[in-house]
Amino acid sequence: MKAAVLRQVGAPLVIEDVAIADPAPHEVRIRTVATGVCHSDLHFLEGSYPTALPTILGHESAGVVEAVGSEVRTVKVGDHVVTCLSAFCGHCEHCVTGHLSRCHAPDVQRGAEDPPRLGTGDMPMAQFLNLSGFAETMLVHEHACVAIRPDMPLDRAALIGCAVLTGYGAIVHTAQVRPGETVAVIGCGGVGFAAINAAAIAGAARIIAVDRVAAKEALARTFGATDFVDASSDDAAKQVVAMTRGGVHHAFEAIGLASTAELAFAMLRRGGAATVIGMIPIGQKVSIAGYQLLAEKTLRGSLMGSNRFPVDVPRIVDLYLAGKLKLDELISRRIGLGDVNEAFTEMKSGTIARSVITFA
Amino acid sequence: MKAAVLRQVGAPLVIEDVAIADPAPHEVRIRTVATGVCHSDLHFLEGSYPTALPTILGHESAGVVEAVGSEVRTVKVGDHVVTCLSAFCGHCEHCVTGHLSRCHAPDVQRGAEDPPRLGTGDMPMAQFLNLSGFAETMLVHEHACVAIRPDMPLDRAALIGCAVLTGYGAIVHTAQVRPGETVAVIGCGGVGFAAINAAAIAGAARIIAVDRVAAKEALARTFGATDFVDASSDDAAKQVVAMTRGGVHHAFEAIGLASTAELAFAMLRRGGAATVIGMIPIGQKVSIAGYQLLAEKTLRGSLMGSNRFPVDVPRIVDLYLAGKLKLDELISRRIGLGDVNEAFTEMKSGTIARSVITFA
Repeated sequence: MKAAVLRQVGAPLVIEDVAIADPAPHEVRIRTVATGVCHSDLHFLEGSYPTALPTILGHESAGVVEAVGSEVRTVKVGDHVVTCLSAFCGHCEHCVTGHLSRCHAPDVQRGAEDPPRLGTGDMPMAQFLNLSGFAETMLVHEHACVAIRPDMPLDRAALIGCAVLTGYGAIVHTAQVRPGETVAVIGCGGVGFAAINAAAIAGAARIIAVDRVAAKEALARTFGATDFVDASSDDAAKQVVAMTRGGVHHAFEAIGLASTAELAFAMLRRGGAATVIGMIPIGQKVSIAGYQLLAEKTLRGSLMGSNRFPVDVPRIVDLYLAGKLKLDELISRRIGLGDVNEAFTEMKSGTIARSVITFA
Repeated sequence: MKAAVLRQVGAPLVIEDVAIADPAPHEVRIRTVATGVCHSDLHFLEGSYPTALPTILGHESAGVVEAVGSEVRTVKVGDHVVTCLSAFCGHCEHCVTGHLSRCHAPDVQRGAEDPPRLGTGDMPMAQFLNLSGFAETMLVHEHACVAIRPDMPLDRAALIGCAVLTGYGAIVHTAQVRPGETVAVIGCGGVGFAAINAAAIAGAARIIAVDRVAAKEALARTFGATDFVDASSDDAAKQVVAMTRGGVHHAFEAIGLASTAELAFAMLRRGGAATVIGMIPIGQKVSIAGYQLLAEKTLRGSLMGSNRFPVDVPRIVDLYLAGKLKLDELISRRIGLGDVNEAFTEMKSGTIARSVITFA
């Protein structure tokens, strides 16, 4: 199969022929139909988070099951599936209390002594985040994918597995936004738009999109934002506080920077909570004034939207097909696998929402 | 009446004769029976938090109602009362959603044009935290005190109004500790011991007291601690993580320092929450590694234990009289008003739990 391979941090991905193993008892082989290009891929590509090399990036895919291992019970050949990097073991403290995204998943990844899932000739290749979706075929644990309704278009379904699940889950699971509350979302990318959209679905009264790119205002409003604030303004936090009679109940950081996490905290009313969705690069510290804690403010992280994806993904599909959740508008352009490096260049310019790779 | 007056930051308190006004319509005059000497008084005495001067410190009192204003409905002459600095208006967003401690209370303090509650001759004196308890008589808003059972000893009741309410509320209201969870409490003073005690009442399985003073271990165990870790050890957080299979569900900071808030955060398991109870001096920043938020950890503040004191204080009294909550052990010594400066000196040495001033 063809795949986009990362051999060196910072280098362009190279399209290569890569071998893929047969499914082990709990594994599923998927013909990839679509994979989104996510900002987190860029973090690993640029080395702000570590990954074993060589590897195949990509972690936001949908496809069709081609083969299953002998013990697989959750999907079958022919099923349409969405993948999720939150591969879960199903029996640790986190899994059995409904916090799948916190699972360390030691049991769902192959051990060092097991044959690798991917490779070229005699050189094994690391699987990226349990998925490696920039490839024509994927081999994943059955707890890294979920079957969905066959009437759901797979190019849009792909985005559910990461960006939408993450933004939606931060609102619905991590922060548990209630009807009538006020929300600010910092960062109008795929995750931020999904958060804005979920806040609207959850009944938030005022939803303030915050971004440095003024041109994103129109799209933010399409997803449900009621207001827009320019994040590059020195008084962005003050503007939000003034608009909301003392600050928002919930602020969400959907970029992955310490500075925007601090900005989110600065927008809170007494008793408000800032939820950090983005991956803040290793080495960056988030600093808050200690006395602000006396206003009962909260700073917390959300990992993949605190998802329980086998339950959440079918619900999100239903919301889309019922016309309540927007996915079409998240996709800026559809590209071939060969255009993946260009998609990262576009992403760094900050102007487009999301590229999706579709496979023939 | 006699009162201990602070005229200058950092100077010793001076016992003076101070005049006290008659109750306005919603005010209550209380004969003070006992007032605890709290670490927060020291913050204001030393200037790490600002206060208007001259003033009378003290904010943890119990006494007997001597007179009430014409509109007072919640207490009557002769009632035994506990005071609380969380004077609440009863009609703002925070009050009507059950978060009294967040109330800004503009309606329960006298305005600039009103006659002052306290004064000496023609010099008005600022009331400290709506209370000023280092005095033989107090004049407070009816929403700054609550009647309690007459069979409750008032010297012990005094501590409920601040230290106990704060430690208990952080466990029960802010963090909502559940049976079987693991808890660490950093700082074995009055608030920390109250938190340890409340964690035991709430059914926490493992309760780890953390303090620099090893001699506090025995008392910590009396309040319900199951383990003790020396906070001055470089690997205090690592010890706690090792003892709890990956970290505690809840860590509480009960000192009021940025460094111990960071220590609390470092003790958390994935998905755990650090609750800062202490008043971190203005200017100190709490810094956490951004990537730690990907483990869904939380840092939040608790103000006066997120109390609803008119409900909580009578409940805590019931818990004490039922033998389930400890107060006697919190009181290290009983002193007269004239010994208040010595009590602060003892406090700074970090060896005693709490002095209580009793009035003749």
